[in-house]
Amino acid sequence: MVMKVYGTVLSTAAMRVCAALYEKNLEFEFIPVDMRAGEHKKEHFLALNPFGQVPAFEDGDLKLFESRAIAQYVAHVYADKGTPLVCEGKPMATVGVWMQVEAHQFEPLALKLRRELLYKPRSGMATDAAVVEENEAKLAKVLDVYEARLSQSEYLGCDCFTLADLHPLPTMTTLMGTPVKKLFDARPKLSAWLANISARPAWAKVLAMRNQQ
Amino acid sequence: MVMKVYGTVLSTAAMRVCAALYEKNLEFEFIPVDMRAGEHKKEHFLALNPFGQVPAFEDGDLKLFESRAIAQYVAHVYADKGTPLVCEGKPMATVGVWMQVEAHQFEPLALKLRRELLYKPRSGMATDAAVVEENEAKLAKVLDVYEARLSQSEYLGCDCFTLADLHPLPTMTTLMGTPVKKLFDARPKLSAWLANISARPAWAKVLAMRNQQ
Repeated sequence: MVMKVYGTVLSTAAMRVCAALYEKNLEFEFIPVDMRAGEHKKEHFLALNPFGQVPAFEDGDLKLFESRAIAQYVAHVYADKGTPLVCEGKPMATVGVWMQVEAHQFEPLALKLRRELLYKPRSGMATDAAVVEENEAKLAKVLDVYEARLSQSEYLGCDCFTLADLHPLPTMTTLMGTPVKKLFDARPKLSAWLANISARPAWAKVLAMRNQQ
Repeated sequence: MVMKVYGTVLSTAAMRVCAALYEKNLEFEFIPVDMRAGEHKKEHFLALNPFGQVPAFEDGDLKLFESRAIAQYVAHVYADKGTPLVCEGKPMATVGVWMQVEAHQFEPLALKLRRELLYKPRSGMATDAAVVEENEAKLAKVLDVYEARLSQSEYLGCDCFTLADLHPLPTMTTLMGTPVKKLFDARPKLSAWLANISARPAWAKVLAMRNQQ
């Protein structure tokens, strides 16, 4: 039975899962969730993800949610397919650190900026310039740490592409369509790394999914 | 060379790491960081954790930060010591889901409530009742999902104690000293699970560390 990803192509979390599956050359079915109609809060979807959020995922009898947990499952259980995405022993410890940096240092600031600079304008709401300024300043400091890391290492976690690089890619791509891009442009190692991982064939497949919609 | 944890006994993140080390029966040295003197923002500490946050961790030449990454390192690299804390294959996928639930559903709300109900009063600042009300309502919904899960399973991740249970323990323990406790008291399975994991000898050692300070 083919794996199933339930989500929307505009969800960075759902795209994180699709990117992992494409890196692994695994077949999957993408099942759009009609969030405008509130499908994610209905009983059949809550059975897949009790928090009523996308994505949700099925692999046979196994039901999972939380995009980073799904990506890790795919990386570990299909270890022999496609791109490794994880490694063993002490190098994996550093991959783990950078996965947590994405989750706890980068993403919370990025989501606040995305809300102000993309979601609010789309909904006809006013962007709060003070919130943008505060979070851009905080994000700049976080990106300085990325820049320092990428001055020592081609990839964030170790010497090859892993989940540490894949996890931030969807949200970073979204921010490239906002003025936050200037924070990336000002950091050459970060920009080169993002250009490199954005050019991966698996990510091109994710972008093609979005463009088909 | 003995492992080193740099932190403060009031840091829930540092206590998460200590709990993992005690579960593994591993020796470690706890090195207090004088955060009031700004030690965590000084160069020697930034070399351990570039974000200037506790904890930081050393195991020989390996330097790590981010508490959940350190706990996972300890669990995987010292797999044959003490409590397993992780498992293999498909059951680990569900452990992974509940680790992400802690990080992305529970902790952000818990930290907002901790700030309003503990940190602000300690600093002579006024608690914002509207923020408390909003985040208690959100947390109640998250804890409903925990209650449903713990109605099916003795532990969050699988049928034994793992990192999925250990990760939320420090912050939950802190919340027990606030009015948020009522949200736990109202949920019998959640309360029984929290009482069970709070009674673990490793956690008693963490609490003893805190009481010695």
